[in-house]
Amino acid sequence: MRILFIGDVVGRSGRAIVAERLPGLVRDWRLDFVVVNGENAAGGFGITELIYHDLLAAGADAVTLGNHSWDQREALVFIERAEKLVRPLNYPPGTPGRGVALVEARNGARVLVTNLLGRVFMDPLDDPFAAVEREIAACPLRDAADAIVVDMHAETTSEKQAMGHFLDGRASLVVGTHTHAPTADHRILPGGTAFMSDVGMTGDYDTVIGMAKDEPLNRFLRRIPGGRFEPGGGPATLCGLAVETDDETGLAAKVAPVRIGGALEPAVPAFWAA
Amino acid sequence: MRILFIGDVVGRSGRAIVAERLPGLVRDWRLDFVVVNGENAAGGFGITELIYHDLLAAGADAVTLGNHSWDQREALVFIERAEKLVRPLNYPPGTPGRGVALVEARNGARVLVTNLLGRVFMDPLDDPFAAVEREIAACPLRDAADAIVVDMHAETTSEKQAMGHFLDGRASLVVGTHTHAPTADHRILPGGTAFMSDVGMTGDYDTVIGMAKDEPLNRFLRRIPGGRFEPGGGPATLCGLAVETDDETGLAAKVAPVRIGGALEPAVPAFWAA
Amino acid sequence: MRILFIGDVVGRSGRAIVAERLPGLVRDWRLDFVVVNGENAAGGFGITELIYHDLLAAGADAVTLGNHSWDQREALVFIERAEKLVRPLNYPPGTPGRGVALVEARNGARVLVTNLLGRVFMDPLDDPFAAVEREIAACPLRDAADAIVVDMHAETTSEKQAMGHFLDGRASLVVGTHTHAPTADHRILPGGTAFMSDVGMTGDYDTVIGMAKDEPLNRFLRRIPGGRFEPGGGPATLCGLAVETDDETGLAAKVAPVRIGGALEPAVPAFWAA
Amino acid sequence: MRILFIGDVVGRSGRAIVAERLPGLVRDWRLDFVVVNGENAAGGFGITELIYHDLLAAGADAVTLGNHSWDQREALVFIERAEKLVRPLNYPPGTPGRGVALVEARNGARVLVTNLLGRVFMDPLDDPFAAVEREIAACPLRDAADAIVVDMHAETTSEKQAMGHFLDGRASLVVGTHTHAPTADHRILPGGTAFMSDVGMTGDYDTVIGMAKDEPLNRFLRRIPGGRFEPGGGPATLCGLAVETDDETGLAAKVAPVRIGGALEPAVPAFWAA
Ligand SMILES: [Fe+2]
Ligand SMILES: [Fe+2]
Ligand SMILES: [Fe+2]
Ligand SMILES: [Fe+2]
Ligand SMILES: [Fe+2]
Ligand SMILES: [Fe+2]
Ligand SMILES: [Fe+2]
Ligand SMILES: [Fe+2]
Repeated sequence: MRILFIGDVVGRSGRAIVAERLPGLVRDWRLDFVVVNGENAAGGFGITELIYHDLLAAGADAVTLGNHSWDQREALVFIERAEKLVRPLNYPPGTPGRGVALVEARNGARVLVTNLLGRVFMDPLDDPFAAVEREIAACPLRDAADAIVVDMHAETTSEKQAMGHFLDGRASLVVGTHTHAPTADHRILPGGTAFMSDVGMTGDYDTVIGMAKDEPLNRFLRRIPGGRFEPGGGPATLCGLAVETDDETGLAAKVAPVRIGGALEPAVPAFWAA
Repeated sequence: MRILFIGDVVGRSGRAIVAERLPGLVRDWRLDFVVVNGENAAGGFGITELIYHDLLAAGADAVTLGNHSWDQREALVFIERAEKLVRPLNYPPGTPGRGVALVEARNGARVLVTNLLGRVFMDPLDDPFAAVEREIAACPLRDAADAIVVDMHAETTSEKQAMGHFLDGRASLVVGTHTHAPTADHRILPGGTAFMSDVGMTGDYDTVIGMAKDEPLNRFLRRIPGGRFEPGGGPATLCGLAVETDDETGLAAKVAPVRIGGALEPAVPAFWAA
Repeated sequence: MRILFIGDVVGRSGRAIVAERLPGLVRDWRLDFVVVNGENAAGGFGITELIYHDLLAAGADAVTLGNHSWDQREALVFIERAEKLVRPLNYPPGTPGRGVALVEARNGARVLVTNLLGRVFMDPLDDPFAAVEREIAACPLRDAADAIVVDMHAETTSEKQAMGHFLDGRASLVVGTHTHAPTADHRILPGGTAFMSDVGMTGDYDTVIGMAKDEPLNRFLRRIPGGRFEPGGGPATLCGLAVETDDETGLAAKVAPVRIGGALEPAVPAFWAA
Repeated sequence: MRILFIGDVVGRSGRAIVAERLPGLVRDWRLDFVVVNGENAAGGFGITELIYHDLLAAGADAVTLGNHSWDQREALVFIERAEKLVRPLNYPPGTPGRGVALVEARNGARVLVTNLLGRVFMDPLDDPFAAVEREIAACPLRDAADAIVVDMHAETTSEKQAMGHFLDGRASLVVGTHTHAPTADHRILPGGTAFMSDVGMTGDYDTVIGMAKDEPLNRFLRRIPGGRFEPGGGPATLCGLAVETDDETGLAAKVAPVRIGGALEPAVPAFWAA
């Protein structure tokens, strides 16, 4: 089964490359399942219902979020009817929306998608390890899901790597998001789970984590806000992770980074090349 | 001019691959200058004088540090006589050692090496932007240095990227260290400075940021220390950034990631292949 | 019912004043119930079984802890047999010891004692609000407990005050601990719960939060550890909160700060003066 | 010389009690110098020029700020002409306004007022210890100033107490601000400097640090903003510290807390009672 995970889509520039390139990738790579992190899709902050549907239209089968989930207040409402929109699982009970979704793939497979928020240097939330343990126990790989995709939205590499090892052999892939810089440590862990500390953002890299350089630099230098953060308007790099799972085990058989367009060195999975 | 920057060497496993592979790289790639981050070289925590000399013997022309600079107390003493050991520049006045060094390269060039500590989610120190500004004004590229190497030891991608843009056109390379996961965003910024959010560690990647998995996982799950952190003992990946500078401008002409050995996907600079 | 809550006992100096003065206070003020926070009792870091029993012998009916609970590793073991030792409730399931205890007071009343750890600027733990909600639902004031004592061990005044209001009318007293400086905002909240943002430490105040001045000052000035933190050895101030509850409602009828000995302005509850 | 320091004035309710009570206190207590922290005076966030002048009109001789200095953008402009408005000293060079002011008191004395921002759990800024050291060296007590007032705006008691000891014998008073809860540890340190970890806010205490309870509680419980923070509208407590200095030494001779109105236990300096 062929899964593509696309990292934090940032603003108009990030949305544009998804709209332009994802339909072709789905077709050319014969993708079975696509997950897109959309927490920064609306001007860098949160997501709207319109954008959510645009991402689905471009080929996303599920959309995950992060610490910016609620920056667009409408997300608190429309998430209830957005069955493929997955917010962090470890928010308090009663939070709108769902932290896990079992979604049907193009090939008919059942894919469990979850989104977790790390806690180190982030807001205090309930334990993401305990939370995902419960969900995976309730819907284990092979028995109840043909693939399990975990988006670990966290600041530190340590917390993300710990999550990878924690779920090794029990999830198809564990990918980090949030830092907006792709890591080059993609690999299959000893137990068979594909892992990458961070898939990077899908946005303009000639920026500071997606935001036009001036205001971030101003804040680092002067410590006083001089204006709003605005997403960079240059061409985006679509960043992600390509994972081919073994249909028997649901675990990863092949893994490769994806970087298309923009300022970064290009990368595509050789094993899916036509 | 050919410069290789090697990321945080972690413990015995990290030191072993540097000792084994670096002499050959210096020879085969005809390197002019090698910088090694050694803040985790001694059992994962700090550096000893013996290890410092071993790194020089293996081919390092300068050794940088970070938030673990003083974990081995002897560093506070021997750093005074270790002319190629560079601790973070933005420690308070009066801190032992030096935060910047002008070192002669194999080709006779003068290389300014500095080490900065970020402040976001790290200990409070003086402003790294203001500190490096002063040093570069005092020893500018071309006029007083043939190359300038900046090791920005920081937690967040935003602070590292901001530093890259801040120095773009004024340093030969700005590389991030500290997160122990290499990023895949190596590139030459518009002004000519080579940049990479983090070069990654030189250590065993089948770990949590270099430490054997059990104790980090224990702490994330139980929140109570169960023992000491010990570096992973498996084979290390040597991680770094290869930069070829233009002798006229001192800026970057070519840049490529380096990953040798261990669990990560290999990478070497095609432009230096024999 | 007369309840005295004594704040973080720090080191030998703090233990000495508890041993010397608490027996007399129990007798003179005819106290029904005494809670002592003991997280810093052993040299400033954690608690030993011997010290726990010394605190009971001096008059404590229950001993609470905090972020330093496990600094003395023996606490992980002896806490299982220490029925009046209450560690933070919101540690993960499976943590040794108990986060809540129903203890019989001298007057035969049932007192529920719990200890919570805040999360702002502290280690990530589960939600203290949700945790205490469950315990109080299971053992409500009047129905199942004659008094409820909540030790909210937290860094920020905002989180402590929010907890006070959250439990107002449902607990007899909510007191903050951890900052080691008593606040002067003791009062009865509108719903009847006694509150104080922090009761302060029981230790030597001619220090930095209980520790001899030199090393804390060294670290603020030089950012490099110069040695261990050692508790101040000067005379301690016993700091606490005196609460008289209404026997009908279990809520607070009178509240007053207690400061005895050492460097701070003395305070004793006028309403208990002989 | 008689000095009154009034803690963070929060919103309309805080401003009202200052306007109502401060003129009478200046007269009845024959105050020579009044400092008011105004960082939360405008709706809880920052200060306007109009409010600054209202505070002066009520009797303030100097107004200090804190981390909320620039919440009202006009402060970046009018602070240049507001000679008695003191923003944190340890902002970067080039920050509008002044971090220290030498102000003439009613009795003709020269009073040096400075405002410092702590760094623990706060934004990264330059070292407040080094910054205040420079200013006090340039304008030492007795030689160049008849009194020195230091407002240490910081989160932790440790950093505030360290500052108190650091300046003991060199400043007339070091008072903490920012936590919005007055501490009861007011005293004269061994070297003669009056100290209090936090003077508390001047605002409505039936709140969460000055803000109406609902939204802070909502955020602690649900972790999702539900609206804006609004200052509590109930009666405020005016909180401060009264210090009488010795005219020969400029050091503190007497110290007492001030709490007038609202929900807290009242306190006035017995030594100034008519
Ligand atoms: Fe993001
Ligand atoms: Fe994020
Ligand atoms: Fe490191
Ligand atoms: Fe580091
Ligand atoms: Fe404590
Ligand atoms: Fe504590
Ligand atoms: Fe404030
Ligand atoms: Fe503040």
